[in-house]
Amino acid sequence: MTIKPEIPGGFRDYLPREMIQRQQMLATIQRVYESFGFSPLETPAVEKTEVLTGGATSKVIYNVSLPRGEFSDQQSLSLRFDLTVPLARVVSAYTKDLSWPFRRYQCAKVWRGEKPQAGRFREFMQFDADIVGSSSMLADAEIIWLMCATMSALGFSRFIVRFNNRKILNALAERIGIGDASGEKAKELFRILDKLEKIGWDGVAAELRRAPDSDADVWALALGDEAVSTIRRFIETLGTDEEVLAALPAILGDGPNAVQGVAELSEIVGYLTAIGVPRENWKIDLSVARGLDYYTGPVFETTLLDAPEMGSVCSGGRYDGLVARFSSAVLPATGTSIGVDRLFAAMGKLGLVKGRRTTTQALVIDFSPELRPGILRLASRLRNAGINTEIYEGMERAFKGQLSYAVSLEIPVVLIMGQQEAEKGVVRVKDMRRRTQVEYALDAVPDAVKSILADL
Amino acid sequence: MTIKPEIPGGFRDYLPREMIQRQQMLATIQRVYESFGFSPLETPAVEKTEVLTGGATSKVIYNVSLPRGEFSDQQSLSLRFDLTVPLARVVSAYTKDLSWPFRRYQCAKVWRGEKPQAGRFREFMQFDADIVGSSSMLADAEIIWLMCATMSALGFSRFIVRFNNRKILNALAERIGIGDASGEKAKELFRILDKLEKIGWDGVAAELRRAPDSDADVWALALGDEAVSTIRRFIETLGTDEEVLAALPAILGDGPNAVQGVAELSEIVGYLTAIGVPRENWKIDLSVARGLDYYTGPVFETTLLDAPEMGSVCSGGRYDGLVARFSSAVLPATGTSIGVDRLFAAMGKLGLVKGRRTTTQALVIDFSPELRPGILRLASRLRNAGINTEIYEGMERAFKGQLSYAVSLEIPVVLIMGQQEAEKGVVRVKDMRRRTQVEYALDAVPDAVKSILADL
Repeated sequence: MTIKPEIPGGFRDYLPREMIQRQQMLATIQRVYESFGFSPLETPAVEKTEVLTGGATSKVIYNVSLPRGEFSDQQSLSLRFDLTVPLARVVSAYTKDLSWPFRRYQCAKVWRGEKPQAGRFREFMQFDADIVGSSSMLADAEIIWLMCATMSALGFSRFIVRFNNRKILNALAERIGIGDASGEKAKELFRILDKLEKIGWDGVAAELRRAPDSDADVWALALGDEAVSTIRRFIETLGTDEEVLAALPAILGDGPNAVQGVAELSEIVGYLTAIGVPRENWKIDLSVARGLDYYTGPVFETTLLDAPEMGSVCSGGRYDGLVARFSSAVLPATGTSIGVDRLFAAMGKLGLVKGRRTTTQALVIDFSPELRPGILRLASRLRNAGINTEIYEGMERAFKGQLSYAVSLEIPVVLIMGQQEAEKGVVRVKDMRRRTQVEYALDAVPDAVKSILADL
Repeated sequence: MTIKPEIPGGFRDYLPREMIQRQQMLATIQRVYESFGFSPLETPAVEKTEVLTGGATSKVIYNVSLPRGEFSDQQSLSLRFDLTVPLARVVSAYTKDLSWPFRRYQCAKVWRGEKPQAGRFREFMQFDADIVGSSSMLADAEIIWLMCATMSALGFSRFIVRFNNRKILNALAERIGIGDASGEKAKELFRILDKLEKIGWDGVAAELRRAPDSDADVWALALGDEAVSTIRRFIETLGTDEEVLAALPAILGDGPNAVQGVAELSEIVGYLTAIGVPRENWKIDLSVARGLDYYTGPVFETTLLDAPEMGSVCSGGRYDGLVARFSSAVLPATGTSIGVDRLFAAMGKLGLVKGRRTTTQALVIDFSPELRPGILRLASRLRNAGINTEIYEGMERAFKGQLSYAVSLEIPVVLIMGQQEAEKGVVRVKDMRRRTQVEYALDAVPDAVKSILADL
């Protein structure tokens, strides 16, 4: 009885070709994040369920358990669904050990049991950067700057980071009379606005007007014509960032949320202008709401102008209630998260990744057992020179068969040291792309290989 | 009601100081593995349970499940407990898409619900390299060479890769009359021998002699004096590798396992000698058995001579039955696995890791909001020059407070551009280690910082 070598639905493998590209992408993001002074953090995949959920129930969180027995856990455990809650746990648990502000990045897998669909997986990777312990708008401006710098470093030019402020959205909620103390109706408004790109204005308007379908339906906003038209006027406010900010008081009035929200965005615009982050890569967009509950200030999204259907590839915002679940302390925070898999798919679509099927740069042909001491020394010499070198170890004994292996993996250099070459103390170096081969003395082989590789 | 920010027992966080060191270690291993022509593979943390277990039950495998509902999985899922079974699934599922031999590495977390104890965790990282599709002893010799090259690159000098061959151990089992067709008794012998370092010869001898305690106890070997003394003579065979190999026929006879096992080890010794892998870093050791069932040929272990109590930090062997669970095909394979966490602990113990508390290389002091455009441009200039630069964004407004932040994180350079400096168009560059500071024109700052960093 054999078992099918199947992967569970919603999960995927990355074979070498894609992994090599992914590693390059991740290394670039890491380099940019570190250039901004973010340091790495690692947390376990498994957390206590109540730490992750705050006591709420969720249908998309994977539970983790051992069979009943001596070592099974006494508490309910789950797989993390994001990297923000583990960050909140870490800053709460190690408050005294860390220096403040705490700038950390984390690149790791997260798991959500959502409906599997094309391009959507139940295991995916996030690359987050957050500044915890700063309430300064300088930090928010730096996050937007970081998002722009990262996208540029990855090779994107036509992208835009659109940002807004939850305080301004709260002022809108107050203006249309749903700014109650609990904020529940306002959050529902933000969730609806967040769908704008997906369902368009008519869809949003219908959801805003929707009447409760029962007494238990506390979410229906049931807005009237005036409120809906105020919302439309708000999200369609056009012009330069300065013009948009100038137009807001007339729509939102001069309550504290409106005044502070506008002041914060003005400050951010000032910083981004001073730095010289290219104007075409960022703008205020009042329709940006972000679906998540926890944002309290500026919120950000990134759209690829050549792949807008991908949605936001890099999003974030300020969430000053980060540690509320764990303590009464207030720890302001702002940050961003890259959806690695989605961004990687976008890079592939836009031709920004260059594939290689193997890390191997040179293949040494294995003609016969007697010659192996020589080819092993040759491989040693190449590896010591920093050239990724493989010795052919498969079933093919003939030269042609071994060469096919190099062709199938697109290995750029093949090294031939048969009986004749060994006697003369030389190696034939074959440039697979140019289809040329030249004989070199053993000492000269590493440089010869390097010059072929440099030309690729 | 607040929730305690606790981590589950048996799991751990890596804060920046350790993570920076870990990343350096992993980058070194990756570089060496790639220099040997291994390419990266990534598989999901979650697999179908039967794929992982082959239908057996296990008390240490974590089960993973969604709450009952629309999207819950129809099949039993679990967290992987090693990277070898996922490799077997991948090579079985993608046989036609891969080129053969398939040389892959994978660095990833695995989970085992074993009894938590000091230095042992339920989540840990493995860094594996395997050659699948080669039955050549050249491949096994390369794995031993790879282990030696990796240990050297990490800074270890006093280590030894000890190796043996399961065929020779099988010949021993035959010799003492427990070489039955199923191999169950022989496997029990190997499991007992594997404990030699931990329980010593007397412990091993007692387990070898143990009589069954009931009819159901099929594992007891109940060996007599002669068999036990043969085993002792076998594992205590001393001398050079050549002497050990020459002594074996007298102990094991000339059955096919004995003859082939000795020939395979001779071939490996020949290759390692030809390459010039330092003799002090490898040797045949007939007491190496490896506990796992699936080995079929050479087996390897690595001991740190300055931290032998750590056990083997890097182990592996040949397992030609790799894909037996999934198909009737025979796919020979050999490889090695580094226990990353254990090796990292050893490096710390032996002083081979140098700690830094942050990736930040330069901190820009933030004196007042009016001066921010200038310091933002300064930070931009430094980041573009490849210097990891942070702007102070915490609560401290005074210079002294901001400087304490740099001290606490051991940031090597602090950059000061207050009112006076801004007016003169200069920056004061403070070398924190030497406690000196020098004024530079804006253009000259990146080079000045780089020269301080180069001196660290």
